[in-house]
Amino acid sequence: MHSTMMQVPLSVTHLLERGRNFFGKHEIVSRLPDKSIARTNYSALYDRARRLAAALVDAGVKPGEPVGTLMWNSSWHLEAYFGIPSAGAVLLTLNLRLSPDDIAYIIGNAGTRTVLVDDILLPLFEKVLPLVDIDRVIVVPTSGAPVAPRYTDYEKFIARDATDFRYPELDENAPCGMCYTSGTVGRPKGVVHSHRAVVLHALSVSLPDCLNLSCHDAVFVVTPMFHVNAWGIPFAAAMIGCNLALPGHHMGAEDLLDIMESEQISLALGVPTIWMAIKQLLDKQPDRWKLRRGMRMMVGGSAAAPSLIAGLERHGLAIKHGWGMTELTPVGTLSWLKPEHTRLPVEQQYEIRARQGLPIPLMELRIMGEEGPQPWDGKSVGELQVRGPIVTRGYHNPAPDEADKLTSDGWFRTGDVATIDAEGYMRISDRTKDLIKSGGEWISSVELENAIMAHPAVAEAAVIAVSHPRWDERPLAVVVLRAGDKVTADELRDFIAPKFAKWQLPDDFVFVDALPHTSTGKFLKSALRAQFKDWVSGTPA
Amino acid sequence: MHSTMMQVPLSVTHLLERGRNFFGKHEIVSRLPDKSIARTNYSALYDRARRLAAALVDAGVKPGEPVGTLMWNSSWHLEAYFGIPSAGAVLLTLNLRLSPDDIAYIIGNAGTRTVLVDDILLPLFEKVLPLVDIDRVIVVPTSGAPVAPRYTDYEKFIARDATDFRYPELDENAPCGMCYTSGTVGRPKGVVHSHRAVVLHALSVSLPDCLNLSCHDAVFVVTPMFHVNAWGIPFAAAMIGCNLALPGHHMGAEDLLDIMESEQISLALGVPTIWMAIKQLLDKQPDRWKLRRGMRMMVGGSAAAPSLIAGLERHGLAIKHGWGMTELTPVGTLSWLKPEHTRLPVEQQYEIRARQGLPIPLMELRIMGEEGPQPWDGKSVGELQVRGPIVTRGYHNPAPDEADKLTSDGWFRTGDVATIDAEGYMRISDRTKDLIKSGGEWISSVELENAIMAHPAVAEAAVIAVSHPRWDERPLAVVVLRAGDKVTADELRDFIAPKFAKWQLPDDFVFVDALPHTSTGKFLKSALRAQFKDWVSGTPA
Repeated sequence: MHSTMMQVPLSVTHLLERGRNFFGKHEIVSRLPDKSIARTNYSALYDRARRLAAALVDAGVKPGEPVGTLMWNSSWHLEAYFGIPSAGAVLLTLNLRLSPDDIAYIIGNAGTRTVLVDDILLPLFEKVLPLVDIDRVIVVPTSGAPVAPRYTDYEKFIARDATDFRYPELDENAPCGMCYTSGTVGRPKGVVHSHRAVVLHALSVSLPDCLNLSCHDAVFVVTPMFHVNAWGIPFAAAMIGCNLALPGHHMGAEDLLDIMESEQISLALGVPTIWMAIKQLLDKQPDRWKLRRGMRMMVGGSAAAPSLIAGLERHGLAIKHGWGMTELTPVGTLSWLKPEHTRLPVEQQYEIRARQGLPIPLMELRIMGEEGPQPWDGKSVGELQVRGPIVTRGYHNPAPDEADKLTSDGWFRTGDVATIDAEGYMRISDRTKDLIKSGGEWISSVELENAIMAHPAVAEAAVIAVSHPRWDERPLAVVVLRAGDKVTADELRDFIAPKFAKWQLPDDFVFVDALPHTSTGKFLKSALRAQFKDWVSGTPA
Repeated sequence: MHSTMMQVPLSVTHLLERGRNFFGKHEIVSRLPDKSIARTNYSALYDRARRLAAALVDAGVKPGEPVGTLMWNSSWHLEAYFGIPSAGAVLLTLNLRLSPDDIAYIIGNAGTRTVLVDDILLPLFEKVLPLVDIDRVIVVPTSGAPVAPRYTDYEKFIARDATDFRYPELDENAPCGMCYTSGTVGRPKGVVHSHRAVVLHALSVSLPDCLNLSCHDAVFVVTPMFHVNAWGIPFAAAMIGCNLALPGHHMGAEDLLDIMESEQISLALGVPTIWMAIKQLLDKQPDRWKLRRGMRMMVGGSAAAPSLIAGLERHGLAIKHGWGMTELTPVGTLSWLKPEHTRLPVEQQYEIRARQGLPIPLMELRIMGEEGPQPWDGKSVGELQVRGPIVTRGYHNPAPDEADKLTSDGWFRTGDVATIDAEGYMRISDRTKDLIKSGGEWISSVELENAIMAHPAVAEAAVIAVSHPRWDERPLAVVVLRAGDKVTADELRDFIAPKFAKWQLPDDFVFVDALPHTSTGKFLKSALRAQFKDWVSGTPA
């Protein structure tokens, strides 16, 4: 017996069509370089994305060819998100926080011949240009200034009729977008997402217990569109028909709060450092902004401490914690309460919500120890391995020395160390390389960091391993205090002591003005380790 | 360039695994034949469904082989929903309201060798048995009585360990379930759903603007599991982890309301006749049941009149209107308000909510007239045609005389006549064969029915065409009054007159005690047409 169902491929073009057909007047709002607000909608997005697609096809871009973008979050970038795959080409988002050398490496590794660049990012791109061999630079005049004649003007490029443009027929496994990891070790590595993966991810991540995305939402995409497809939200948004707000390069807490108020944002997405700045500003001026009731914020990129969740909750802002990777599409888990949790004390609820959470549908998780799969008991640690149609099986053009990331039975090795509890909640302990091995026992740097950051005087804290003649490694805490606040090392140690065994406590607390972060807001522990590589444990702070 | 994503097939087994892994203790409640309540959960469902799968494989059931069920809604039927596809076999739900002859036809057409039967349905099935050639009847002892030795006892059949059972490796396009249409014309026709279609439908239909299915929900599946997979909800429920309640054969309004109260149901699904009976009982005893705040009801199967939506709203029950077909998976559209509607007067909101609505993601709609696709203006009528990975392209073993239901460009012809308005809301005018052609102009029987049913004295009304010497056809209204209420034909005509052109009004209103319905609750217009075939328009009622 055979199924009688139609063979219709999943495609990003369906999402674009759906946004136009059913939510054409729903708004897409961008903040321009001069801070003014530009408004468009899904109907105009459809028209302009198709004009871009038609222009790319006419310019000779072939199905499967990567087209780069070096752009901030704006409706222009959204046009590229849909227009490039609609031409059958592959959206390659270039991370503008990488070095020109790394950006050039990515362009070469992907084989990109065409790049779209925001005009205000041309000074950066002109450092990349001498290092690459490309055919065409299309400059997007977001600032309103004329485009230099040596480049293609985006607005002229798409100034055409595309009413009769027909999408190329594509298999759903055809490439749709390409993202490079921003790892702290080695060269960036490319993941190629298929149309199928992007559509499945959009469906799964929008579900009520996941991001709960409705056409009644106004979603603020603070997470950069140049990084892991802005968590896939632009694709989901067109399918669902929510209003979208895009901050351009204005990422300060005050600017963000202004948009949250003026657009009555109901869901905002970003990394913890962004929400920490917002929390600090709201703590100072709690009544300045009239935010939409029940506004929720998705936090990803790195773990949100329970103290951050509680701190934002005091301002009526509900944090949704998530975990993802470039190697997914990219969201893997989201933390939500089950009905049996709703009567727990709020502190316990914060603790559950601070976990990385439950996998979204179509994701499978397991914890692999040295002797095989670990039990789901919330204690047994091992490497987190994942599987599913929204997970990569490897990298594009991998370097020959890259170890295979797939296990022999086809699971992807994340390199994260985690536990899963009996209810299925996953919790990242650490990156494999961030664990501290003291006297043969593991200490989790993340748990120490969360405990230290719960102290009201602490703005940020990172814990790294420093070598020790007797114990092999010992934890060192590197702490940034809030402006004007004071606390001593002993006070901090006493503060966290109830939560840890004595041998797990950092020997030393070092106070610094700022911590180094990766381009995506994670602590850059490799830099900290280099800075403190000669630290002798027990040194007075 | 190729995508780097894993090739992991979409499969119903993923939904079963997910229900167990993350929502194992969430409840599945069944009402037994003696009206008592049996409680189980997703963890036990997983275990028992896998035991059924292992037993079927050991009994020689092959991948792709249909296994029939003749069962009411219960946790046993749910085991079959997951256990049969987990064996690689095909769930064939037999509609117990069909004639024994039609059931036998379906068993033969599908090629079924094994059937699961509720013991209380054996008297019916024993009328089918002499007409079919099958190997094994597995009797499910839902009543608790011993199973006659000539049949296989379900509980003994699955009494085994299945810890090590491994699902067969299946392509996602492999068949998973099979449903037959219950059309009023000709033999039932089989649609074969794939694992892919069922998983995609589960994702799409659960979205916030669709059924908004969360693990915090308690869902009452009143719509029969022997009909179009109970709208796909059992599959979505395991993925989402909501509590489920299944009514057995106790379908009276009082029994249903008792379960809604005891299980604190948040979403109930059924056909309009069920909700009409519930509305009438709540009108009489508004304070008897303490229902969960914000409880919502999905209505499908046939159109819900705005008056029914308003009537249930008065009891705090929110109606969600939907449209589907066996030939989909099966939900095609659902009606929801957009943000721009929330400030309209409630009557206008009811009118929008009574439309068939917007397609769920992955569904495409168009209206085809004689001269091609019709504009989306809310007025232009034509045949509704649909397309997507959750739509059938035809039937299993079709009879040679069945016209092709696919257009030359690959869209499925629904046989429904509809409009789509500028905002994308689809509205069914009629089945092609239910339209009334009077003096060369079309009259919609559905619009007349909705208008008549808005009268407080009317319980149900159906409008059919009767032949007319001058106008070819004229509408005849056949009306059932509410017990104890009275209204005359002239009063009804005056009541609806403001909404129609004079020539569209029925010449006659006939009052009857009851209307004939199909096995799935739709008006059986073919029977009415036969009954009134010699009616002469203008006859005094």
